Amino acid sequence: MARLTRTESQARTRTDLLVTARDMFLADGYAKTSLERVAEEAGYSKGAVYSNFRTKSALCLEVLALIHETKFGEVTELLAGEDTLEARLDRFQGWAERTLGDVGWTMLEFEFAIVARDDPALQAALVSSLSLVRGTVAAQLQALADSMDMTLPLPPADAATAVLSLGLGLGIQRAIDPSLSARLITDAVRAMLMTGDRAR
Amino acid sequence: MARLTRTESQARTRTDLLVTARDMFLADGYAKTSLERVAEEAGYSKGAVYSNFRTKSALCLEVLALIHETKFGEVTELLAGEDTLEARLDRFQGWAERTLGDVGWTMLEFEFAIVARDDPALQAALVSSLSLVRGTVAAQLQALADSMDMTLPLPPADAATAVLSLGLGLGIQRAIDPSLSARLITDAVRAMLMTGDRAR
Repeated sequence: MARLTRTESQARTRTDLLVTARDMFLADGYAKTSLERVAEEAGYSKGAVYSNFRTKSALCLEVLALIHETKFGEVTELLAGEDTLEARLDRFQGWAERTLGDVGWTMLEFEFAIVARDDPALQAALVSSLSLVRGTVAAQLQALADSMDMTLPLPPADAATAVLSLGLGLGIQRAIDPSLSARLITDAVRAMLMTGDRAR
Repeated sequence: MARLTRTESQARTRTDLLVTARDMFLADGYAKTSLERVAEEAGYSKGAVYSNFRTKSALCLEVLALIHETKFGEVTELLAGEDTLEARLDRFQGWAERTLGDVGWTMLEFEFAIVARDDPALQAALVSSLSLVRGTVAAQLQALADSMDMTLPLPPADAATAVLSLGLGLGIQRAIDPSLSARLITDAVRAMLMTGDRAR
């Protein structure tokens, strides 16, 4: 393997720690994961963790951002393509069944929201994170409508709040009761596009 | 005050403990509330708590059931009446703004779901509780449609899952960011009734 520059080596350490922390937070939850164990599991010193992420909550915020980027990246990819709306919605439905209510992810988001309850700085960070997520969903809905030459029946921000609420609500319910289908969110996206289209 | 019979006195002790526990769970969360402190705050012995509720999780399940009964009782009452759909939906909208995203309630539900994560008996109890909630929402939607001589566009169970998902999802988002409006859930109920009616 080629020798890494100092900057490359630092970036690799950071990524290793972040990915290890993600897997541990998802498997064990927030409270049960310590920075010490993340360092040990990733094969670095405690100092390496602390110099990259000041606190456990700062690390978890970056882990959640990484998870959101991955999940929304998957959605962007499966909604793209040259095929029909139904083919795209089929792929989205498969993703929703696999993803909404994933216990590790769902519980980590909740646990972190509870941790942030009494911490104004974390609260503010969660508000930003939520606003970023909502903006991403709005952009994805608008892109889907545009690529189908359809229109949304609501301003994209409202459409996004509705779809995101359905996703979060189904996620909670499916994390508790995995027998519940996720198809309502796909039906809602379809109905939204159809209604918007009729309204033109 | 009239002297209570032994049965009446036992029922009063139970209610006192339950209501005190509810207020403490809502204010401080699950982890920070101990059965000892509930006993002390309610003015009873520790034995009184343990003989009424075996464990903290059993007590919390009863507290959540009490909260659900109260909240759904409020909705049943405000949706009833002889007035127009819009007047009823206005009252529902007021309730949603006050209630969805209430930090104490929202966080308690999440925290308890996390506690139940590794406990199959609690998991099963949460599945039952969720199914009861879903059934209540289905009955309320059907009663609203019936009283307006309207029809739902979906089977009541699916309509309930959709409205409950929206409520849960908006609740999470509003618990994090209270500036978000709750009106999407009212819009969804209205749209549902209107769509069903057009479909007849």
